Amino acid sequence: MVTDWKATALAKRQAILDSIPERWRLPKIPSVEEQKDVTGSYIQQFLESKEIDITETDAVGIAEKVAAGEWSAVDVTQAFCHRASLAHQLVNCLHETFFDAAIADAKALDAHYAEHKKTKGPLHGVPVSLKDQFHVKDVETTMGYVGWIGTHEGKSGDPKYKTYESEMVRELRDLGAILYCKTSVPHTLMAGETVNNIIGYTWNPKDRFLCSGGSSGGEGALIGLKGSPVGLGTDIGGSIRIPAAFNGLYGIRPSVGRMPYEGMANSMDGQNSVLSVVGPLGTTARSLKLVVKSILSQEPWRHDPNVVEIPWRDSQEKEVWDTVDGSTGQLTFGLMKTDNIVNPQPPVARALQMVVRAVEKAGHKVISWESPAHTDGLTATLKTWTLDGGRDIHDSFALSGESIADQIKIAYGDVAKEEKTASFIAKNNVALRQWKKQYMDAWNATVSTTGTGRPIDAIIAPLAPYPAARPKKYKWYGYSVFVNGLDYTSVVVPVTIADKNVDKYEDDYRPINDQDKECYEDYDAEMYDGAHVAVQLIGRRFQEEKMLALAEYMGQILKSGKA
Amino acid sequence: MVTDWKATALAKRQAILDSIPERWRLPKIPSVEEQKDVTGSYIQQFLESKEIDITETDAVGIAEKVAAGEWSAVDVTQAFCHRASLAHQLVNCLHETFFDAAIADAKALDAHYAEHKKTKGPLHGVPVSLKDQFHVKDVETTMGYVGWIGTHEGKSGDPKYKTYESEMVRELRDLGAILYCKTSVPHTLMAGETVNNIIGYTWNPKDRFLCSGGSSGGEGALIGLKGSPVGLGTDIGGSIRIPAAFNGLYGIRPSVGRMPYEGMANSMDGQNSVLSVVGPLGTTARSLKLVVKSILSQEPWRHDPNVVEIPWRDSQEKEVWDTVDGSTGQLTFGLMKTDNIVNPQPPVARALQMVVRAVEKAGHKVISWESPAHTDGLTATLKTWTLDGGRDIHDSFALSGESIADQIKIAYGDVAKEEKTASFIAKNNVALRQWKKQYMDAWNATVSTTGTGRPIDAIIAPLAPYPAARPKKYKWYGYSVFVNGLDYTSVVVPVTIADKNVDKYEDDYRPINDQDKECYEDYDAEMYDGAHVAVQLIGRRFQEEKMLALAEYMGQILKSGKA
Repeated sequence: MVTDWKATALAKRQAILDSIPERWRLPKIPSVEEQKDVTGSYIQQFLESKEIDITETDAVGIAEKVAAGEWSAVDVTQAFCHRASLAHQLVNCLHETFFDAAIADAKALDAHYAEHKKTKGPLHGVPVSLKDQFHVKDVETTMGYVGWIGTHEGKSGDPKYKTYESEMVRELRDLGAILYCKTSVPHTLMAGETVNNIIGYTWNPKDRFLCSGGSSGGEGALIGLKGSPVGLGTDIGGSIRIPAAFNGLYGIRPSVGRMPYEGMANSMDGQNSVLSVVGPLGTTARSLKLVVKSILSQEPWRHDPNVVEIPWRDSQEKEVWDTVDGSTGQLTFGLMKTDNIVNPQPPVARALQMVVRAVEKAGHKVISWESPAHTDGLTATLKTWTLDGGRDIHDSFALSGESIADQIKIAYGDVAKEEKTASFIAKNNVALRQWKKQYMDAWNATVSTTGTGRPIDAIIAPLAPYPAARPKKYKWYGYSVFVNGLDYTSVVVPVTIADKNVDKYEDDYRPINDQDKECYEDYDAEMYDGAHVAVQLIGRRFQEEKMLALAEYMGQILKSGKA
Repeated sequence: MVTDWKATALAKRQAILDSIPERWRLPKIPSVEEQKDVTGSYIQQFLESKEIDITETDAVGIAEKVAAGEWSAVDVTQAFCHRASLAHQLVNCLHETFFDAAIADAKALDAHYAEHKKTKGPLHGVPVSLKDQFHVKDVETTMGYVGWIGTHEGKSGDPKYKTYESEMVRELRDLGAILYCKTSVPHTLMAGETVNNIIGYTWNPKDRFLCSGGSSGGEGALIGLKGSPVGLGTDIGGSIRIPAAFNGLYGIRPSVGRMPYEGMANSMDGQNSVLSVVGPLGTTARSLKLVVKSILSQEPWRHDPNVVEIPWRDSQEKEVWDTVDGSTGQLTFGLMKTDNIVNPQPPVARALQMVVRAVEKAGHKVISWESPAHTDGLTATLKTWTLDGGRDIHDSFALSGESIADQIKIAYGDVAKEEKTASFIAKNNVALRQWKKQYMDAWNATVSTTGTGRPIDAIIAPLAPYPAARPKKYKWYGYSVFVNGLDYTSVVVPVTIADKNVDKYEDDYRPINDQDKECYEDYDAEMYDGAHVAVQLIGRRFQEEKMLALAEYMGQILKSGKA
């Protein structure tokens, strides 16, 4: 058995590499010591100038160029297939490629455009990468499990194998998107790093000492290397936002029921207490908006029983722009410097300050966010991950007998534990609801301090205590997880780059507890130097339009502040 | 212990009666043989003409009269307190009265009106009755449990006892509603009849051989006797719609998350698979709309973490009226004659035909609803009621040691059974979602038959196989429950009155199975004669505006058809 799964995994790993056309293969992959950062000029050396132009344009720009007839869908697709191939060789970010199908689709789109003189939809010709939970016709879904190879979600002989497509895949195709690859995940999806027995470890392209994040770590690394302009990940505890933050990207965690999850593979499917959500990561905030708005134009609530009938609301987006453009407009942000459990490391603390300064300079207000204690809410949220005692994931591991990554063993052990009962789950659901209510009331109460007649517009908070976690050292998920517990909308905004000369703990820094001490001791200014640093902007539930507008605005004022 | 709970229950029962002012007490309650129907002229004999005028006006009419200064809030309140008092004496429909507080509130509203020359809100002066799950300051909540008397939800010494108010109570007060009584429920809430050890049995005022329905049976009976113009019930398997149907009322089961349940007492709180919802019952469809629209104007999503941010959408309501008013407009309905498990009894089958005829006469289209099989969906839905093996409800029974109604024992036994595990629950949740998806796809597929370019606008279906169930003979909940499983919007529309001369099974009727045979054999044309008969109009999830408009329109065309 042991030999078997290793051979199966190796064959699959080789098959992924073999799927890359020979002309795009790299003769040699540099070691991390030789080349820590493989983004920018490093990866550009393998590309032609037009390919660089195309792949360094954001999704909105690509859609515009293709719609204007300046670029063909085929040119765009080929450029991204090439760059994604390079990215995979450098950081192990892909589980599947289907470049030929993508080129064929691109040709059909170009033909459509030639014939009708208009695009098929708002994503016409835009390459969209997919986390390896999406089912795509003719393509496997392993979710990093060796035991899922050759099956549909672990079921051998299932007629859905390589024939079934997830609901959102159907919608993306209708919108004109180009689908061309699926990206790596940690097996089980339950980690902020991306590691499995098929592709190994997905490294952070900006700093290959560090992880690319997880569980949508392949997305983060691929888009970070501009091998994709925008991609779809999922998030049950930070899995969209962590890779976005660690790779200098924007990423949105929508509220449960805003975007269609129907027909996707998942872990612990049917756990109804805190649900995983699907959402985009991309190089710009407006790219995320393009994807979310386009998907909503498909009325997914008619095709996914869990999607709520809330169409894209231009008015809510407009309110933000009216506020910041008008002379009297003022936004108010609540600043969460720390969750009082683990303080952010120096680069993240500095990023928060940069955001505060930019916001204040732009004429807005920042108040301290007096948060209800996170402990109870986090406890209730984290309990939902192990209600079945890990049975679902251990069943999937057992299919092949493969070894379990240490990052997964921490929470799930070597074997399944006892399951929780209905009463336990119900009680936990009530605790979670009560905490949500507390948080909601605290948010509403800020109306007395903002001076705008409204409660705060968003919370500015760390997304993780680290710029990007070091392998096997992702120890504190509190900053991302509490948002899932609350089901709030959160957008990650890239802010700066870690700088070893600036980002230092104060000499007299005294950790607030043992967890904070570990985080403090794990900090290594040298290793983090050059890594991306981000924050998250958190809004109430179902505030996708507002939060995407705020994220875009934040990007603008951060940029102008730097200039 | 046995003596104790009986004495406690009796004392509470007497306290309810004692809370009725002496001048409103009836010298004698007629037996059912003496007076089967206590509605209409029977109850009117105890009221003055102005009281009759007021109490036989619907909620919208009341709001208009009070807003116009024609009626004072005090006059309205007194009239309803009087009629509710009579109703309780005739059919046992109240758990709590708080008439003095109501009169005081009405005086304050009248003073507000006199001072500002305008109303406090859209429900200014409208009495609203509340199912005994709502917490109201200075008032007890027993939910029919003897063990809850003198406690907050069974917890002795809880500071919330008689001090706490449910979120919707706060909203109703802000809207100007008059709160004056709480209505009876079956202990546990898990029955379509209303029976508990405090008030005994709540009878159907139109036909006191029959039940008033449940679990919002007190609401049904009270509003059926016009002791309230509109009231709020809850529905996890039909508990709003059953009492509405059995009492000749309109009642809406909104989708989960449309109306605020925050801070209400409940059974099996935290069961997150199929949730109970709160919604109004009333004498007209427009009264339900008034309540739903008014509540939504309070933005309950800012105060209840489970409410979804969907404001009242005038446009969706207007679409219905535009369709029926326009010369080219046509609606399409799917007719569900039977769920193929238990056929409706003759009065209900006739009501369906009356609706079909009215719809067709009005120029609309009726097609046969080719429903996915209900069996799997019903099984998955019903499983969610006993996930905890009945532990929650048996814990509440154990507080007093009271006896358990036979109607509850059927599903929950004498003692708690083994609890279900997380995996069982997750698997069931997946089965439920898959069934929802099947149903959704079948609904979408009707677009090919309607000829309107849209799928069907609603399903016309029985709400129960009976006009109203006979005591202890409510055996088939399938027609109401499948809607909860799907989380669809459903509005009950009263259609006709059972007629022993017309409503007969065909001589050669052959039951389709044993369940249907039981239903067939339980039918008693004589006993049902004169009982209300209703149907339900079912729409997709979150279609409250559309379904309320359709229900109002259906009422209009049924009426004009009769004329």
